[in-house]
Amino acid sequence: MQNTIGGLGEFALITRVTSQFPTTDDVILGPGDDAAVVAAPDGRTVATTDLLVEGRHFRREWSTARDVGHRAVAQNFADIAAMGARPTGLLIGFAAPSDLPVAWAEEFTAGVRDECAVAGGAVVGGDMVGSDTLTIAVTALGDLQGRAPVRRDGARPGDVVAYTGHLGLSAAGLALLERGIDGPAECLSEHRRPSPPYARGVEAARLGATAMLDVSDGLVQDLGHVCRAGGVRIDLDSAALRPHPALLEAVAVLGAEGPGAAAEAAVALMVAGGEDHALVAAFPPGTALPGHWHRIGSVTDPAAGTPGGGGAGDENPVTVDGRAPRNRGWDHFREG
Amino acid sequence: MQNTIGGLGEFALITRVTSQFPTTDDVILGPGDDAAVVAAPDGRTVATTDLLVEGRHFRREWSTARDVGHRAVAQNFADIAAMGARPTGLLIGFAAPSDLPVAWAEEFTAGVRDECAVAGGAVVGGDMVGSDTLTIAVTALGDLQGRAPVRRDGARPGDVVAYTGHLGLSAAGLALLERGIDGPAECLSEHRRPSPPYARGVEAARLGATAMLDVSDGLVQDLGHVCRAGGVRIDLDSAALRPHPALLEAVAVLGAEGPGAAAEAAVALMVAGGEDHALVAAFPPGTALPGHWHRIGSVTDPAAGTPGGGGAGDENPVTVDGRAPRNRGWDHFREG
Repeated sequence: MQNTIGGLGEFALITRVTSQFPTTDDVILGPGDDAAVVAAPDGRTVATTDLLVEGRHFRREWSTARDVGHRAVAQNFADIAAMGARPTGLLIGFAAPSDLPVAWAEEFTAGVRDECAVAGGAVVGGDMVGSDTLTIAVTALGDLQGRAPVRRDGARPGDVVAYTGHLGLSAAGLALLERGIDGPAECLSEHRRPSPPYARGVEAARLGATAMLDVSDGLVQDLGHVCRAGGVRIDLDSAALRPHPALLEAVAVLGAEGPGAAAEAAVALMVAGGEDHALVAAFPPGTALPGHWHRIGSVTDPAAGTPGGGGAGDENPVTVDGRAPRNRGWDHFREG
Repeated sequence: MQNTIGGLGEFALITRVTSQFPTTDDVILGPGDDAAVVAAPDGRTVATTDLLVEGRHFRREWSTARDVGHRAVAQNFADIAAMGARPTGLLIGFAAPSDLPVAWAEEFTAGVRDECAVAGGAVVGGDMVGSDTLTIAVTALGDLQGRAPVRRDGARPGDVVAYTGHLGLSAAGLALLERGIDGPAECLSEHRRPSPPYARGVEAARLGATAMLDVSDGLVQDLGHVCRAGGVRIDLDSAALRPHPALLEAVAVLGAEGPGAAAEAAVALMVAGGEDHALVAAFPPGTALPGHWHRIGSVTDPAAGTPGGGGAGDENPVTVDGRAPRNRGWDHFREG
């Protein structure tokens, strides 16, 4: 069975796969040894890791192998960008059943390779093992180019909150796939292959961002981390959350009736939907933001109090128009 | 169900777990942000990743959660040591069924923490997700302290081959567990918690090692990589492979009859058994090796030819007493 990875064998597959990866100036020693050696020019390395599990984070019937490859890279290099860093290296652990077609592994590899080219990082190492559950573990490395990392805890009252990239499209795409409804291609493709605005992470750092993260669990839930880490609150302005046309189209297809209901449903997906990997950041008041950064709210003082919202230590430090939002996102393990 | 990780919830578990990890001077920014920041003092980072899958790399009935934590760290920092580097940071991806007891996750964490203390590295980040298959993904980072990495491809004819650490004990421990036979504690514990000689990786680099790796798949199979990468052959001297007393005891318990048969079986486990994570290296002839480095063979010229052995491009570039060994180790995916 040469057309399954069990038939081909681990070493043959690794050889076939690693030959596909181009190198970059950051790769001092690439795949094939006990460990890789990656450049860390300023004496620091940014590092993050994520797991993707079939049936939980992707489905083979909804996403191609190439999509999954793109996404595995995108969600990790988005974390690198969210620190204000430049992607450098990537390590991939690949656990798969022995009956997985070799073609799936090769298409996945092609997706990884192509998304690395977009982000500017290189695959430097990995591991390949057998498992009943197809699982992909990605570790991404990055370079701060001498700057301080943009952490979650630096937002100060008065700061402007702005995002760049997409919000809600991935969640809409997932909802369409779950219901088996055809819908706007932008939403489906954003779910399958999110397109984080990698280079804008470095841009935000240069603009003086005081806090930043990528939106993986949902805008409100993720901004909650910024609030709790920084001891602040954030109020979002729903009028500033302008839905992408494809998002409005998707919520209409999904059953929102009339323009008012559609707009409301679209904004709900923008504040609660995850996995677009937009970058959201706080900037000092008066920062001249390029047009692709959308101002959507402001950082407020927890002592000031807002009707309906709680303090920084409360369950709900992020409000929309001064009120608690309805849905705060997902907790991957929570039952029911 | 607060006593399962599904009942406790992802964020609560992450908070509970990460509070257990001490920091080190290498940790510039630890867990809790989009990514960690780790020191890379000489402008390079060594990085490696491994997956451990329940039922394939460990069994909950044979190993405690604490054992698995130790082992996950050990096999990754062994790869860092095998480059001649010092362990710095560790990232852990944890994919688990929602009915996994919280106590298991906490004991695993304790094992990770304790092995990090032995190796000298710190946990800097991770990810926690749900999965039907308990899977642990570890990425280890290291610091070369200004030295060149000790690669696999530098061995030259005339070099001495030597190892430090244990060989065969883990394989004997696994064989005992598989057969349900009680045996020497050293073998069982080496399988459950391998003890790589971390600091001797840096020592080997300082001594001028021309090639090095850690023994994960078996001595002969792993030295085959050194041969193919360097275009050389290696001949091992079976008389120099002196079995640990516990290994002799284990093979006797496992059924080897008489001292001759026991010695032969023990040497077979030393050359074919994996997962002890001993370090094996090639050194220039005349290198003054400390006593804990055991000389076991030499690097030979592929053009010279050895009766019964092949050239570097052949299937079997590693010989024992000039002959092909019987068992070359495992290929994780190969069927049958």
